[in-house]
Amino acid sequence: MPHGDLKKPLLQRSRDMEPIISEASGLVVGILGTGDFSRSLAARLGNSGHAVVVGSRNPKHSAGLFPESVEVTTQQDAADRADLLFVALFPEHYSTLTSLQGALEGKVLVDVSNADQLNQGRPSNAEQLAGLFPNSHVVKGFNVISAWALLAGPRDGSRQIPICSDSSQGKSTVIQLCRSMGFTPVDAGGLSSARDIEDGPLRLFPSWGGPVLCSVCLFIVFYAYNFVRNVLMPYLSEGENLFYQLPVGMVNTTLPAVALEMLALVYLPGLLAAGLQLWRGTKYSRFPSWLDRWLCVRKQLGLLSFLCAALHAVYSLCLPMRRSARYFVLNAAFRQVKEGIEHSWNEEEVWRMELYLSFGILALGVLSLLAVTSLPSVGNSLNWREFSFVQSRLGYTALTIATLHTLTFGWDRAFQPGSYKFYLPPSFMLELVLPCAVLLGRVGLELPCISQRLARIRRGWESGHQVHFQLPGEVPNGDIPEDISDV
Amino acid sequence: MPHGDLKKPLLQRSRDMEPIISEASGLVVGILGTGDFSRSLAARLGNSGHAVVVGSRNPKHSAGLFPESVEVTTQQDAADRADLLFVALFPEHYSTLTSLQGALEGKVLVDVSNADQLNQGRPSNAEQLAGLFPNSHVVKGFNVISAWALLAGPRDGSRQIPICSDSSQGKSTVIQLCRSMGFTPVDAGGLSSARDIEDGPLRLFPSWGGPVLCSVCLFIVFYAYNFVRNVLMPYLSEGENLFYQLPVGMVNTTLPAVALEMLALVYLPGLLAAGLQLWRGTKYSRFPSWLDRWLCVRKQLGLLSFLCAALHAVYSLCLPMRRSARYFVLNAAFRQVKEGIEHSWNEEEVWRMELYLSFGILALGVLSLLAVTSLPSVGNSLNWREFSFVQSRLGYTALTIATLHTLTFGWDRAFQPGSYKFYLPPSFMLELVLPCAVLLGRVGLELPCISQRLARIRRGWESGHQVHFQLPGEVPNGDIPEDISDV
Amino acid sequence: MPHGDLKKPLLQRSRDMEPIISEASGLVVGILGTGDFSRSLAARLGNSGHAVVVGSRNPKHSAGLFPESVEVTTQQDAADRADLLFVALFPEHYSTLTSLQGALEGKVLVDVSNADQLNQGRPSNAEQLAGLFPNSHVVKGFNVISAWALLAGPRDGSRQIPICSDSSQGKSTVIQLCRSMGFTPVDAGGLSSARDIEDGPLRLFPSWGGPVLCSVCLFIVFYAYNFVRNVLMPYLSEGENLFYQLPVGMVNTTLPAVALEMLALVYLPGLLAAGLQLWRGTKYSRFPSWLDRWLCVRKQLGLLSFLCAALHAVYSLCLPMRRSARYFVLNAAFRQVKEGIEHSWNEEEVWRMELYLSFGILALGVLSLLAVTSLPSVGNSLNWREFSFVQSRLGYTALTIATLHTLTFGWDRAFQPGSYKFYLPPSFMLELVLPCAVLLGRVGLELPCISQRLARIRRGWESGHQVHFQLPGEVPNGDIPEDISDV
Repeated sequence: MPHGDLKKPLLQRSRDMEPIISEASGLVVGILGTGDFSRSLAARLGNSGHAVVVGSRNPKHSAGLFPESVEVTTQQDAADRADLLFVALFPEHYSTLTSLQGALEGKVLVDVSNADQLNQGRPSNAEQLAGLFPNSHVVKGFNVISAWALLAGPRDGSRQIPICSDSSQGKSTVIQLCRSMGFTPVDAGGLSSARDIEDGPLRLFPSWGGPVLCSVCLFIVFYAYNFVRNVLMPYLSEGENLFYQLPVGMVNTTLPAVALEMLALVYLPGLLAAGLQLWRGTKYSRFPSWLDRWLCVRKQLGLLSFLCAALHAVYSLCLPMRRSARYFVLNAAFRQVKEGIEHSWNEEEVWRMELYLSFGILALGVLSLLAVTSLPSVGNSLNWREFSFVQSRLGYTALTIATLHTLTFGWDRAFQPGSYKFYLPPSFMLELVLPCAVLLGRVGLELPCISQRLARIRRGWESGHQVHFQLPGEVPNGDIPEDISDV
Repeated sequence: MPHGDLKKPLLQRSRDMEPIISEASGLVVGILGTGDFSRSLAARLGNSGHAVVVGSRNPKHSAGLFPESVEVTTQQDAADRADLLFVALFPEHYSTLTSLQGALEGKVLVDVSNADQLNQGRPSNAEQLAGLFPNSHVVKGFNVISAWALLAGPRDGSRQIPICSDSSQGKSTVIQLCRSMGFTPVDAGGLSSARDIEDGPLRLFPSWGGPVLCSVCLFIVFYAYNFVRNVLMPYLSEGENLFYQLPVGMVNTTLPAVALEMLALVYLPGLLAAGLQLWRGTKYSRFPSWLDRWLCVRKQLGLLSFLCAALHAVYSLCLPMRRSARYFVLNAAFRQVKEGIEHSWNEEEVWRMELYLSFGILALGVLSLLAVTSLPSVGNSLNWREFSFVQSRLGYTALTIATLHTLTFGWDRAFQPGSYKFYLPPSFMLELVLPCAVLLGRVGLELPCISQRLARIRRGWESGHQVHFQLPGEVPNGDIPEDISDV
Repeated sequence: MPHGDLKKPLLQRSRDMEPIISEASGLVVGILGTGDFSRSLAARLGNSGHAVVVGSRNPKHSAGLFPESVEVTTQQDAADRADLLFVALFPEHYSTLTSLQGALEGKVLVDVSNADQLNQGRPSNAEQLAGLFPNSHVVKGFNVISAWALLAGPRDGSRQIPICSDSSQGKSTVIQLCRSMGFTPVDAGGLSSARDIEDGPLRLFPSWGGPVLCSVCLFIVFYAYNFVRNVLMPYLSEGENLFYQLPVGMVNTTLPAVALEMLALVYLPGLLAAGLQLWRGTKYSRFPSWLDRWLCVRKQLGLLSFLCAALHAVYSLCLPMRRSARYFVLNAAFRQVKEGIEHSWNEEEVWRMELYLSFGILALGVLSLLAVTSLPSVGNSLNWREFSFVQSRLGYTALTIATLHTLTFGWDRAFQPGSYKFYLPPSFMLELVLPCAVLLGRVGLELPCISQRLARIRRGWESGHQVHFQLPGEVPNGDIPEDISDV
């Protein structure tokens, strides 16, 4: 069809323009209830050019609470006059509306209520409303938005509002109304989805629970280990009082351990998934559910790793500000003068520290880039290849540099018997096990024999199906990313 | 209505598909004017698949400035052929278009102009245009977007464009056109809203004025106080020259004071609002307007507090880099050698500093999380409960830790007569008044007798209305958040 | 048209509501292919309330891979029953579908495939599909979204999906379907745009190449210069071993140089553009293409400058942590004791350092604000005047302070013969040339005679056209911003 075809005859054009009127304008919108949400909704609808009538049990008492452009009337009158009504009551008061059944017949009722607790089998509020008004088009929506956000108006077009209904007509009207108010509606299917929608606002960072727990546990384990090895044992065996290190020094020894382990945990599940596909010889079988869940929280693991790394940087930078550091310098100066050493200098120590600092700064820099691309608005502006580059290449780069940072911190101390105080190895040795294993695993996957087999499997080939139908496979971008998950 | 109802007979389905054509495609779009905006608009419309004709006073002269796919013709010809025309002229030239009145009858005219200064009673440019073309559908829109942004195309679907008109048909067409170009249109009501829309781009951070002024004043007051107490008085009374502290040392003493006060000011209005509701015994009466405005700038106050806290951190970290700090260490080493002190150590000083640093780092960490959730794209991805958790729990946590940071900085100096040099208390004591008051007020609201009464009031109960109608109250999420306001 | 007109008679209203059904609900959506993308798409479509049938070569084998609500059937059956079909096969298998030509006649086919390499003249995959099915409405779309992102669902409404087709009906249907899934469709015109759309996901940060190359080159040049002057020459001429400075010290001398040059390069093209307009006496002629490209990457240059500046800050803060810094202090203390200097103090050195640090911190603070407003979601919430204020005023403020930072670092060393070791000037002198030139150029543009002429040119005046038509110029916001470009 040629491009010039866009210039259609006038007749067609004018027909095109007619149904445009349907953009939800010209509706009379009613609101039942006079609470905060009702008032904010009325103001917002008015600002978006809609005519609004509010139905109140006590119109005179309520009228003063609404903007002047909004008409406050009785519930019966509002139900009669509006085409679409928001039910802004507590669910326990829905039954008081049954007298309006006749007036509400065939009209769209929007249930905006929230649940008090997570749904465990009860019908949702919206389903209860639909039960009371079987002849109305009940739509669930707007519950995720607060009265406050309604009033302020959407500052960003990306505020999503899930909407569901068994009536496609009702749902469409509400979707267009929602869009005209500047929000982004999302069609969430039939009214049975209302339970999920009502549960939504009750959830508290559902995908963060596991990763946060994991990092807290790692922190406790490493802190306890370092406490025993570096503070408690010297105190018990030599009476040395190092307890002043608890608030800063010990925390700063523990944080990089947590950061490094968490970063390794970001990349481990991708390796396990690849290993499973190689072992099974197919990708057409589901991963165990724990692996699926793990793959889904890689972004959270990565961000917590970054948080620990950033705190580690701030703690480290604060070290020279401590009074104890000052005393150490002064006492060292005293010793140097006493011993008459004009020029103290240990080239190896100098180099170790310079390299150690370099790797640390670079690792933090790369992790910062990763963290910035985790911001929804930045991630959205990346295409698939860019996102994959950032998360996979930069991510493994960060892991490699962070491992080098820890290795240069250790230097040759792993080979000095004096490091194994009380038969306990220094904690940096324990920290290095997991990231080194992940890096080795990744290198293993790059071996030609393995990487080619994996690539074949990911394009749909299955071992044991030599003459497998070579087709309706998938489109190339269909692979599960091997890295920090999708934004 | 059962879910299966979605599968309608084929007939219905095919009817459904017909009006889809209305998606603003197939329109011939005209542009009057040939400036930068006109050229960018033409390019953007072309990229979005629309046929574009540009009306110029001098088509030959202008044609070279437009992409080849755009037809540049006379104003009369463009007016005749287009269904919808953008008027991309300076408002002072609108009158030159009156000869096109006949051709533009019944067509949609989009006024994209901006005002030169804030409107003070004049009719808006769009209303002036509507006066000149009473038989056209005049729509206001696109003025918030620059020629540059048009050309670059929207990189993010959340770019909002307010659109208003008295013609719902015209408005709908422009809304769909706007959406097809990748922007997010927002229905802003009737043409009288055009004044606000035209004023919009002239405003310069309207909600930041008060908070910035407040932080600047606080900075000046604390800086002056510290200057007098710590620099000027020592100079006058003892001839001690500490003026070198003005650029770094004094600023770094003042910044945390500003940060702490600003953070307390974030949470004070919520307490005042709660107190007012408790005192009035109802929430059905408006807050005084100063409190409303204060509640609305809590986010700005919080971000400025974070900015000051972050700068304080950077300044503090720079302290050991100063030449003066180096001299102090060297001179202290000299004294220590002279006095023959082999091991200088003050356990209390060491502990004070370690605790002080710890609290500071933690407070900054929590404030950083708060700042990140203030980013529109992050805040949008939080539900109401998560947002409230972050802003209320984490916010009060940050305030508490920051107060502890200041308290450990002070240690026991408030009880040492030597701290009251020149009869002036150290500034950290002044800083602590407000945050401690806010924290005490918050604890007060948690007392069962008070919190229960407040909860009842917020669910719609009113004192003095024992048999108050227990109903059409509000939906649960209708409360004004007690914390940093909405994103 | 008066506002009251919104209240139309009921008849009109009910007509308004009918075509609303067109919101793409009620469609039966088919998917050909059973790969990852197909499975994710089926799940997402189901969640959005659409009926889905999947056409497979081997329905029994594939059924287990799909959610239960999805019907897996033969390709023929799916083609018969669906109104719209996604073709989720590798392009090399499109020819296997030719037997379905009859069943697919008049239906919408969505090509979701990606290319393997950048298109160089070949027809796009979508055009090949359209060639195979001349009687279907072939639409290109969804290729920019990964299987993973489909499954997770859009977390942010701003995820843009370009869609193109020669069939406006097909395109409209897919646009609405896309919107109902929670994504933001962007109309990309006719099917010939499919090449660009398919190339999109293959591009790797196209606008970052030049700026990154530029900063890497600057880094190498300055690093090499500093290496020769500060490390190599002292070693060759005096045998002084300063190689330990390579990882931290030298990098930290080089980074601020790169940051300052990059920041100057952000503002230079705006000056050049203004100069060109002044010289040509008109703005109605295109800039040379290198200048256009340069103007388009100012944001990237600015962000890289910020990255270098931030790294410079972290490196600088790490300096006191180095072992070498510790040795220097200890050795200085030794010398001080030996020489019996009770109180070492150099007021000028102290002031230089305090001012130098102050300017550095302030420059970094202002650059941070600039970087934050470069985040898409923050930039989107600014109006044109705010954005211009931030990028132009704050940007030049940052450049000025950064230049002062470098000047106070240099202090009077430029005038001391001892600074010209080996006849090479210190690098800070080289760094200062470009930013000083840019600042002078900017001051020059502020001279009344020049700024007035420039303002006239930018409002459409042309030299040599004394009686130029004073009109159809442009709208005021049409100027190319003089600063870091649009977000």
